[in-house]
Amino acid sequence: MTDTTSPQTDGGLSRRSMLAGAAAAMFVPATVAALSSSAAATPPVTAAPAARAVATPPGTTHRLTMYVEDLGGGQTGYGLEPGKATIPGPLLEMYEGDTMEITLVNTTDRDVSIHPHGVLYDVNSDGSPFNKSFNGPGETRTYTWRTTGERAMGRWSRPGTAGYWHYHDHAMGTPHGTAGVAAGLYGGLIVRRRGDILPDKQFTVVFNGMQINNKSAPNTPMFEANHGETVEFVCIGHGDMFHTFHLHAHRWANNRTGYLEGPRDPSQIIDNRDLNGGDSFGFQVVAGEDVGPGAWMYHCHVQFHSDAGMSGIFLVRNADGSMPPGAQESIDWFHNHEGGAHH
Amino acid sequence: MTDTTSPQTDGGLSRRSMLAGAAAAMFVPATVAALSSSAAATPPVTAAPAARAVATPPGTTHRLTMYVEDLGGGQTGYGLEPGKATIPGPLLEMYEGDTMEITLVNTTDRDVSIHPHGVLYDVNSDGSPFNKSFNGPGETRTYTWRTTGERAMGRWSRPGTAGYWHYHDHAMGTPHGTAGVAAGLYGGLIVRRRGDILPDKQFTVVFNGMQINNKSAPNTPMFEANHGETVEFVCIGHGDMFHTFHLHAHRWANNRTGYLEGPRDPSQIIDNRDLNGGDSFGFQVVAGEDVGPGAWMYHCHVQFHSDAGMSGIFLVRNADGSMPPGAQESIDWFHNHEGGAHH
Amino acid sequence: MTDTTSPQTDGGLSRRSMLAGAAAAMFVPATVAALSSSAAATPPVTAAPAARAVATPPGTTHRLTMYVEDLGGGQTGYGLEPGKATIPGPLLEMYEGDTMEITLVNTTDRDVSIHPHGVLYDVNSDGSPFNKSFNGPGETRTYTWRTTGERAMGRWSRPGTAGYWHYHDHAMGTPHGTAGVAAGLYGGLIVRRRGDILPDKQFTVVFNGMQINNKSAPNTPMFEANHGETVEFVCIGHGDMFHTFHLHAHRWANNRTGYLEGPRDPSQIIDNRDLNGGDSFGFQVVAGEDVGPGAWMYHCHVQFHSDAGMSGIFLVRNADGSMPPGAQESIDWFHNHEGGAHH
Repeated sequence: MTDTTSPQTDGGLSRRSMLAGAAAAMFVPATVAALSSSAAATPPVTAAPAARAVATPPGTTHRLTMYVEDLGGGQTGYGLEPGKATIPGPLLEMYEGDTMEITLVNTTDRDVSIHPHGVLYDVNSDGSPFNKSFNGPGETRTYTWRTTGERAMGRWSRPGTAGYWHYHDHAMGTPHGTAGVAAGLYGGLIVRRRGDILPDKQFTVVFNGMQINNKSAPNTPMFEANHGETVEFVCIGHGDMFHTFHLHAHRWANNRTGYLEGPRDPSQIIDNRDLNGGDSFGFQVVAGEDVGPGAWMYHCHVQFHSDAGMSGIFLVRNADGSMPPGAQESIDWFHNHEGGAHH
Repeated sequence: MTDTTSPQTDGGLSRRSMLAGAAAAMFVPATVAALSSSAAATPPVTAAPAARAVATPPGTTHRLTMYVEDLGGGQTGYGLEPGKATIPGPLLEMYEGDTMEITLVNTTDRDVSIHPHGVLYDVNSDGSPFNKSFNGPGETRTYTWRTTGERAMGRWSRPGTAGYWHYHDHAMGTPHGTAGVAAGLYGGLIVRRRGDILPDKQFTVVFNGMQINNKSAPNTPMFEANHGETVEFVCIGHGDMFHTFHLHAHRWANNRTGYLEGPRDPSQIIDNRDLNGGDSFGFQVVAGEDVGPGAWMYHCHVQFHSDAGMSGIFLVRNADGSMPPGAQESIDWFHNHEGGAHH
Repeated sequence: MTDTTSPQTDGGLSRRSMLAGAAAAMFVPATVAALSSSAAATPPVTAAPAARAVATPPGTTHRLTMYVEDLGGGQTGYGLEPGKATIPGPLLEMYEGDTMEITLVNTTDRDVSIHPHGVLYDVNSDGSPFNKSFNGPGETRTYTWRTTGERAMGRWSRPGTAGYWHYHDHAMGTPHGTAGVAAGLYGGLIVRRRGDILPDKQFTVVFNGMQINNKSAPNTPMFEANHGETVEFVCIGHGDMFHTFHLHAHRWANNRTGYLEGPRDPSQIIDNRDLNGGDSFGFQVVAGEDVGPGAWMYHCHVQFHSDAGMSGIFLVRNADGSMPPGAQESIDWFHNHEGGAHH
C-alpha cells in the first residue's frame, strides 16, 4: 500500500506556469520511491525527487485521490491535490502487476468520470454513464485499475497491459465525455514492464482539437531537457480532427517502447506518427543525441494545423543547463511568428 | 473441392435480426468441417456447427456462390444463398495455400463486383471496371482468389497472404465502387497461417461513413459472447471519413494476429486503432478476461462520431450464458441514450 | 567524397514526361556506382546506369547541389541540375553511417529550405525559419544530414536512422512551408542498413492534398516495371487531408523494409496504409508475382478521393517488356474514365 505525493502545477496563464502545466506531473508512490523525476520541478510546483527511478515492489497498490476542478475559461482539469488541477492531468505510472485505486472527487456541477485505456477494470470502474460508473455533481467515487503481464499460450502469448496509455473523462456533456475531453479532462498513463528503461524527464503531449494540451502556439508547452538526458514523450490524441505528431531531429521505433528489441526487431523507425482520437503512444529519446542542443520544434504535420497553432518547442539545453547559442532567438521568433502571431 | 453452407442472416430491421445481421456470417466448407462457429446461431439464421474449427486440407479450393441483392432502403448486400444477403457480407476464411472461387450472381440492375484485399488474383479477378472484371446488371461472373505462404530470401522473407483482410464492391456508382460500398457491399476475409489460433466466435465490424455495419446507435450490432470464450474481431474501414476503433476493457497486440510472438515481440499493445478507408485488422480476445462479464462498449473514438451513433455493445455474458448483473440496464440505457436517442 | 550525376526528368505536361517526372529520379554517387537503376530511363531523361546497385564505401559523404525552381502553373520543384527540377524531387539515398551535404540553390524569389525526416542534423540544417536555417530569395545554403546505426543498450538498442524518409520545404509561405509543399517541394529519402535488399526500380508516390505527385487522374504517374522485377515504392503524405494508399494485387509487411525478418516476424501484412501529413513508408514487391503482368491500380482508398482523381496505374509489363493482353485497353479506359474524365 502506498499513498501519494503530488508533484504538479497550477493552471495559471503565465508563460512559466503554462510550461509547467504542460509538463507531465508525475504520480509518485512516496512510501517507496519516485518512479521518475518530474519535468516540472519549479515553484509553485511540489518537486518530485530528481533521483532516477526505483521500481515499486511487485503487486503494489497505488492509492490516490484525484480532483476534478474547473480552471476558468471553460477549462477543467484533473489534479492530485485540491486547487492543483492541470491540463493535462498528472502522468500516472505503474508496473504490470500493480493496482491503482483512484478516488475521484468531483468538485464541479456536472457529471464526470475517469476512463482508462489499456488497463483492467470491471464495469463499475468503466467510467461511463453506460455502466452507471461516473460521478454526479459533487460526488466522490473510487475507480480501480488493475494490470497483468503477458500470458504464454504455446508459441504465442496473450498481451499484458504494459503500454503508454491514457485516461480521460467519459461522462461530461455526452455519454462519451465530449465536453470533458474538450475542457481538458485527460492525462497520460504508463504501465511499465519490469526491466523497462526509465527516463530522466517526461512530457505529456495531447493533440486535442486544433490545440496541444488545450493551448495554441505560441502558448503551447515548451518542453525542456539538458543535452544527454533521456526524455520520455507520452503522446495522446483526442477530439474530432486527425493529426500527426512530428518531432524534429529525433526518432524512435514504432513499437511498444520506442527502443528496438535488438537487431532483428523489424519495427519501422519514425519521427512522425498519426495521433487520432483515443490513440496514444510513447517513446524515449536522448535529448539532442547526435544533433546537439538547440531549440527544436514539435508540431502536428497536417499543414494547416501547424500553421494555425499546433506547434511547440523542445528546448535541449547544454549539458550544464545553460542556453545553447541561438536558442533564445528561436524561442523569441516562435513567440512572434507561430500560431496567430504571424498573421 | 467443397461446396458451401450458408450460416447467415436476413437484412430485416428488428433488433434481433439487426443483431444477427451484424454478426459475422461464416463461410463454412461443409465437406470438411467448420473453421469456426457462427456468432449468430439464432433463428431465422441457419446455424453453423458450433464445434471448434478443424483445418481444411492444404491447398483446398473453396467454391462458393455469392449473391448481390438489394435489401431495400438503399441497402445492398452479399449473401451465400438467394434471399440471404447481409450487411456486412459473410465472413470468408481460408488458409495460406488455399484457393477460393467465387461465382458472383448479380441480382441487381447495376454494375457490381467483388474486389478482395491481400490475396492473389489476376487482372480478370481484379473486380474493377478498369480491368473489365465486374458483373453487369443480372450477370454472373467467377472470381478466383489464391493465397501463398511466405518465401524465404536469405535473412528475410517475402510476405505471404495471411491476414485479416476484406472484400468489397469496386464497380457500383463509380469506378471505385463508392455507391456499392456505401450501400453495404463489403465483408471480412481471413487468411490464416497453419497453426494460427482459432476463435470460438467471430464478429465483423465495419466503420463506413458515420455508421457501423451501415447502422447507427442504438441500432448498431450487439456482439455477444460468454465469459471466457475466445472472440475474434475483424475490423474494416470504408468511406470518406477517418475513424478509430476502441474496445472497452480488452486489448490486443498491434500485429498480424493480435497475439504476441513471445516475450521479445516488440509490438505495441493497443485498445484503439485507426480504421480508415480500405484498412482492416483483426485480433482475438478472451471475452471478459481479467475484467469480468458485463456490457462493454465499442465505439469510434472520434468524439463527434461516437456521439452521433458510432457506438455499440460487446455483451459478455456469464460463462453459463446468463446475463450478468446490470447488463440489461446498460443495454436499456444504450437504447435510450446513444445515437440520436439522447438529443 | 563524391559528386553527382543527375538522372531525372523535366517538369513538362505530356503524358510521357508526366510519367517520367513522377518516377523517382535517383541520386547516384557517380564516382562509386549507382545504388540502383532509375525507373525513368527514357528520353528526355538522362538515364542512370541500369546495373544493380553497388554499395558505397562506409562513411561516404555525398555532396550534391539541388536547385529550387519554379515550374510554371504555381508548381515548384527540386532538381539536381539547373532546369531539371521535378515533382517529386530526386529520390535521395544513402547508407547508415553516410553523410549528405546538400548545397541548395534557391532560384525563386521566395524563402525556401530543405527539411529532412529521420536523419541527423544540427539546428543550422533544420530547414526552418524557426532556426533561421533557410534560403532567402536567390540565396545558396548548404544543409548537412548525417546518419547512424543503432546503438546497443542491454537487451534494447536505440534506433539508427535507416528508413524510408522524405524531405520537403519548411519555409515557403508559412513557417511550416505550407506553400512550398503545396507547390511540389518534396521528395523521397532512403537510408539503408548494410545488407538491405536493393530494388530494380523505384517509384516515389506522394499523396498531397487531393493529388498524387501534384497530379490528378488521368494525369497521375503510371509506374512501369517488367514482370519479375523488384520494385520499390516510397510513399509520402503531405497537406491537409487524410489518405490511405492502396496497391492492387501486391502486399507488404508493415515494418521497416516491407519484408519479414523470418517466420517469427509478427508484422501485419498489408496492401493499404494510412498516409497522412509528414508520414512516409516504403516497401518492395516483385512486380506481378503470383498475379501475372497487367495494368494494376494504386489509389487513395478514401472513396471520394479515389473518385476525384487520386488513382494511378502500376503497369507490369511482360518479362520481355512487351505489353500484356488487355493492358493498353485498361490504360485507355483509365484515361477516359478516371478523375474528372467520367463525370
